[in-house]
Parts: sequence; structure tokens; C-alpha cells
Amino acid sequence: MAVQCEEYYPEIKGSFSFEIEKVLFSRQSSYQRVEVVQSKGLGRVLLIDGLVMLTERDEFVYHEMIAHTPLFVHPDPRRVLIIGGGDGGTVRECLKHQSVEKVTLVDIDELVTRASLEYLPSVAGAVLSDRVECRFEDGVKFVKGTTERYDIVIIDSTDPISVGEGLFTHAFYQDCFKVLSDDGILVNQSESPAWQAEEVAKISAKLRRVFPRLYFYQAHIPTYPSGHWLFGFASKQYHPMRDFREAYYRQFAHPLRYYNDGLHRGAFALPNFVKELIDAQ
Amino acid sequence: MAVQCEEYYPEIKGSFSFEIEKVLFSRQSSYQRVEVVQSKGLGRVLLIDGLVMLTERDEFVYHEMIAHTPLFVHPDPRRVLIIGGGDGGTVRECLKHQSVEKVTLVDIDELVTRASLEYLPSVAGAVLSDRVECRFEDGVKFVKGTTERYDIVIIDSTDPISVGEGLFTHAFYQDCFKVLSDDGILVNQSESPAWQAEEVAKISAKLRRVFPRLYFYQAHIPTYPSGHWLFGFASKQYHPMRDFREAYYRQFAHPLRYYNDGLHRGAFALPNFVKELIDAQ
Repeated sequence: MAVQCEEYYPEIKGSFSFEIEKVLFSRQSSYQRVEVVQSKGLGRVLLIDGLVMLTERDEFVYHEMIAHTPLFVHPDPRRVLIIGGGDGGTVRECLKHQSVEKVTLVDIDELVTRASLEYLPSVAGAVLSDRVECRFEDGVKFVKGTTERYDIVIIDSTDPISVGEGLFTHAFYQDCFKVLSDDGILVNQSESPAWQAEEVAKISAKLRRVFPRLYFYQAHIPTYPSGHWLFGFASKQYHPMRDFREAYYRQFAHPLRYYNDGLHRGAFALPNFVKELIDAQ
Repeated sequence: MAVQCEEYYPEIKGSFSFEIEKVLFSRQSSYQRVEVVQSKGLGRVLLIDGLVMLTERDEFVYHEMIAHTPLFVHPDPRRVLIIGGGDGGTVRECLKHQSVEKVTLVDIDELVTRASLEYLPSVAGAVLSDRVECRFEDGVKFVKGTTERYDIVIIDSTDPISVGEGLFTHAFYQDCFKVLSDDGILVNQSESPAWQAEEVAKISAKLRRVFPRLYFYQAHIPTYPSGHWLFGFASKQYHPMRDFREAYYRQFAHPLRYYNDGLHRGAFALPNFVKELIDAQ
């Protein structure tokens, strides 16, 4: 019997397991258990409190979709704030945009970044860039206290349990609104409409109270629960499709594996049951 | 320890399991093992040779997407041929279109339909309609021998192993082309681009040799491997987006849970890694 890593999905009373060759890193921080394992079929896998945060096999989907979707809409994104995302994958994608002068990464747990730098360098390496400031502190307190303003805020959080819970509150979204420039865009990971329907409805209702424009888009992330993942796109001014920068996209030089211009538009076309969830108040 | 039903995914050396309350039906036919189980979180589940064919929780995604996508493109679909699909879910969706005069269902294994009628009546009940002819015979031989012509052919098959293998060959696609009317459309389930990449590339290459127009579209099906599922749309004449019947869609009276007009278009917007797979020859 091979050694297994198993993630349980309470809503469907089911689980996803994968075979592992070796535990490369496992340590308890003040906040959570951080682990990196070598799997047999998914590359290296980052786990927090036993839940899959990313796998080398499909992390590109999540990171491309959470970063490029707002960055191809805002006409001149210079300052990006990432809350959570200590693994560095979202930073890596943001830095592909030349207009981005500075990325501020605020993750409460330095251990995530240290483990990722050592065991997932293709994901985390970008945090070492001169254009990146890493702050290991509570993102909730940071947005409450800072006087800085950002063009893009990306909430790259864990699930709305334990450490991540504060990143799903109305008060936090209000503070994010405040730190955004007048034409700023907030994007957040918004859980699975298939297996976390209640969470999706709550996120939508809370964001809608704060932002004048709210849209959701979806992506296929096989190693997340159900594989059907949602992102919120909350904007002060821009429309995700009408303001898509086609000309800039055409001269963008970095090869991407998931995101493209057609997909940008297609991702905002949601199934009926998802529309109902996000429109429920 | 709860009783588990487990499906292994060889490409990622992982598996999906769900808790079951009761095995409702389990019998070996001449072709395969057919089972219906009552799960704890996914409703009833139809298994063939241990693989999940459908769950009551998410079968609507697969059946709506495989049926409505061609039926909202062809201007006057009257005769529909379904190969496989003995559970009846695809039949149910096709019958929602008034223009459809006759659905011919050809499944090699009557046991699938009998088990579904007894234990999954909300899925299978439609096969009893006067507009449906069920033929329990080999679909490969049927399309080779028939002189009938169809506006739509839907290949609603199992995976390209054992019983389903013949439904993924170049010769079979040629026979399907022959039984299609001059403006006919073929749609087939085309596996997962995430975890069955080689199969996807093979299906695409074979269809492309036969059909002048070939497109693929995707859907989120949580209980299929990776949740990222592809369908082929092979057409003699019509374009899946340019020929979408907007006016007809607007007056379509049946509520749907996944499919809608925006999603129809969005589903054809594919990630870069999927485009590469289907364009590889």
C-alpha cells in the first residue's frame, strides 16, 4: 500500500487522495502546519493544515487566472497588493507585467514563503525580485492601518476557516476598498460553487455591499475541491470585458499555459446554478 | 470507517472516494459490471466497471452540455442519434426541444437502461417517451449498417477502454459522418484535457481527418476525473457560435441548471494547454 495524502470534502462526504514518495518539509508555525511533499503524479505539493494549496502540476491555472485577469483590465497597474499568497505564485505572474513597479506581498506566515523558496523555487523564486516587498504580518491589520494606495488588490487566501477567516469579512472588504485607488480592482479566490455553495453566496453578498461593480469568473483547477473554482472581480470603475486591453494583450511577451484573451471573456460566462448563488442576497 | 467507493486515476496516481450507504443494484452483463449505489453526499451513483458514469448531484452538467450545445446550433434538429447514453440523461435533454421528432438511442447494454429506469428514474424516465426508440445493440455496427440519416449524432460513451473503445476510432467517426445529414453535427464526450491529455489529442486528430469543421468545448463536471471535461463539436457546415440560435434560445421554456447562451459561447474559449492538445496532429 502506497503512502497516501488524503483531503476530505465534507459537503459531498468524499475525498481526494494521492500517492506520495516523500515528505520534504513539515513544520508547525504559530498559525498552521506547513508541509511540502513529493507526490508521484502531481509533482511537489504544498499543504497547509493538510489541505492542498498548490501542486506543481496545476498551480499555473490558479496563479495565471487570479493575476492576469485584473492586470489585463486595469489600464496602468503599477502597484499591486497581494494578501496571503506566501507561496509566491501570484507574485510571479504579476511581475510579468512591465507596468507593475511594486508588488507588496502580505502573508501572516513567513514559514509558507521560506518553505516555498526552498522546495518550490519555480513558484516562489519571484518574491526575491527587487520589485517585491514581503511583509510577514496580518493582512487584516495591514489594510486597516496602511496609508498606501494600490491599483490592484489580490486576496490569495486559504479557505474561510482558521487563519484565513478574517480575509472573508465585510470589514476586511471595506478596508480593501479604502486602500484601492479610485479606479482600483480587487480580485479574490472565492471557493467552489459546486461543493462550497454557501461560502460562495456569502462572499458575493459581502463584496456586493462594498463594491459598485461585482463580477465572478471561473477556472478549472483539478486539485481543488470539485475542480470548479470561482474568483471575485470587484471593481470601482472598470468592466472585466469592456475594458479588457486587447492591444496590450497582443504584444504581451510571456507564454502562458491557461490564460488567453478568449478565455478571459469566456471565464466570466457562468452556469445558471452559479449565477443563482452569486445573485442570492 | 465508512464504506467507500473509490475510483483510481492512473495519470496522477491519485483517487477519488466517496462514502456509500447502500449498494442498490449490482450485476454483471455480457459486457460490463453495472452498479447503482446510494452515496451519502452525491445522491445515487451509476458505476460501470467501477467507474463513475453519473451522480444525481452533478449529472445535469454533462447531460445539458452534451445535448443543448448542438441542439441550439442546428437550425431544425428533427432526428437525433445517441450512441451509448443508456442511462437516458441525454435523451431527457434532447426531448426538451420541440423540433426533435425522434431520438434513437443505441446502447450495447440493455442492463444500463434497465438499472437506470429502476434506480435513477429522474435521469432515465425519458426513454419511455413515444419520441424515443431504444435499440440495444452495438453502436459501431449500427452506424455501419443503417441507411437512416440524422441531424445530430451524440456519442455519449464510456472511456476509450473495453466496451467503449470502438466509439473512439477513425472508422467509427467515418460511419458517423455518413449517417449525418448534409448539415449534421456530431458531438462526443472527449475525456479530460487535464488528466487524459493523450486521449484528447488522439480524439481530436481522428475527428479532424473526417470532419471539415472541428471545435471543442469544456465543462465543469466535479465527479469526473479532474473535473475538467471536454466535448468535441464536429460539424459539416455550422459554426458553434456564429450559428447559435439566439432567438430560439430566448423563447426556450425549460429551466436549465448549467447551460445558458453566454455559457454556450464561453465554453468554446479554451485554455492554452488545451488548444495545444487539440491542435497537435
